[in-house]
Amino acid sequence: MTAHPFDRAMQLETVDAETFRGVTHPEWANMVGPFGGITAAVLLRAVQSHPERIGDPLALTVNFAAPIADGEFDISLRAVRTNRSNQHWVLELRQGDEVKTTASALFGLHRDTWADDESHPPSVPAPEDVAPGRFVDAIVWAKRYDMRFTDGPVPTEAVAPSASSTTTLWVRDAEDRPLDFAALACLSDVFFPRVFLRSGRFLPAGTISLTTYFHADQAEIDAIGSDFLLASAHANRFSRGYFDQSAHLWSRAGALLASTHQLVYFKD
Amino acid sequence: MTAHPFDRAMQLETVDAETFRGVTHPEWANMVGPFGGITAAVLLRAVQSHPERIGDPLALTVNFAAPIADGEFDISLRAVRTNRSNQHWVLELRQGDEVKTTASALFGLHRDTWADDESHPPSVPAPEDVAPGRFVDAIVWAKRYDMRFTDGPVPTEAVAPSASSTTTLWVRDAEDRPLDFAALACLSDVFFPRVFLRSGRFLPAGTISLTTYFHADQAEIDAIGSDFLLASAHANRFSRGYFDQSAHLWSRAGALLASTHQLVYFKD
Repeated sequence: MTAHPFDRAMQLETVDAETFRGVTHPEWANMVGPFGGITAAVLLRAVQSHPERIGDPLALTVNFAAPIADGEFDISLRAVRTNRSNQHWVLELRQGDEVKTTASALFGLHRDTWADDESHPPSVPAPEDVAPGRFVDAIVWAKRYDMRFTDGPVPTEAVAPSASSTTTLWVRDAEDRPLDFAALACLSDVFFPRVFLRSGRFLPAGTISLTTYFHADQAEIDAIGSDFLLASAHANRFSRGYFDQSAHLWSRAGALLASTHQLVYFKD
Repeated sequence: MTAHPFDRAMQLETVDAETFRGVTHPEWANMVGPFGGITAAVLLRAVQSHPERIGDPLALTVNFAAPIADGEFDISLRAVRTNRSNQHWVLELRQGDEVKTTASALFGLHRDTWADDESHPPSVPAPEDVAPGRFVDAIVWAKRYDMRFTDGPVPTEAVAPSASSTTTLWVRDAEDRPLDFAALACLSDVFFPRVFLRSGRFLPAGTISLTTYFHADQAEIDAIGSDFLLASAHANRFSRGYFDQSAHLWSRAGALLASTHQLVYFKD
């Protein structure tokens, strides 16, 4: 058994050419079932582990169809199309005969082109100058991260509703595990539901679809090591039971590593 | 044969309980194959046409795996999970035994909740005060729309590279067809590649993955009629052959109808 909780959660056993088997880990528990980020990560890792995979992750969409129960799950995956420079995968995560999660992943080769980063990381103090923040204790997976909120922290006690849904935080692995693509996929879901911030209280809410675009290539990821990332999320519209969230994750140097979007259901 | 080109492109023949057959239409041709928006629309329409479908569209992800050839295509689809208030679909578009497009769609019921729109439509002149713009003649599908650019128009002749990738336009159906969900899905891909604007010239570029979140419900869509929508798109980062685009579509009254994101490949 490897030492780090993230690596334990990424362990997959080969069942056949199109199936891997994994297991949930209590270190990544959310209120109901595992943290969505760890599910996204293990789906990405399944593609990375497949012998036919080419290139780096470019896009990942995960649809959370039903809660994953504690225990084993099977991930079936196939490359439905391999082009000269990219490859399209479809995945399903099942427990028994129930589909719990569906996903699609796009992998591809990078090549040198004109490049520019138009994104604007918010101006915030250095992580060393921000006190570590916390989620509520019931959210086990949050203990895997060192989080330092500079805007919109978790409303851990009754607070006034906020006029803005924006949360910004520095975040890194709590045990200094270096970043990789799967860890970046996991961090794309690191934000608590935006409706908590707007309402000042906890409400039933959950991500139903998550899409992440990976801008960094392997070398850029490797250069991050275990340093803090700057992560910022906001909602666009809350309407009749659903809202969307858009978020960005930057290196400390201000390079946009990933853009990530999700649709969330909520009740009030 | 129905009169409007959009409705013609939405016509599907039932092959069996999990398969519809459609056909490409020359009115929706892009440089290579059909416009990505019309493909997204016909995939959404396939789910809407299925007898098991519940609720309104909430999210749609379309992965453009290979160019669709002119002619017939088969859409296979199944509801992998139906919950109390939402339903997860997976789809594949094939020609012969080749997968050309994969997709996932999330549908669901709306219910009354607290609501707010945090999005900020750009401040622009009324569409009646903006001259109709144009794409290049080779882009046939663009003739289906009345487009009025207020920022970042198509660089139809050699122009200086722009410092910003933002395009904003008013857009409506050129023949006053009223909006519906499929037409909104189609419009989510109405923007030309952002790299054209940044480079001031046409480069090989194409959408490889498109995700749209639908904020409006049926009643809100019906109230739009055939009025203009305000549409604005920007890129976040261009890096080693790929860039992402985020865009929003608002009603004239400023309600956010859809948030839409895509990953695009390009060569220079």
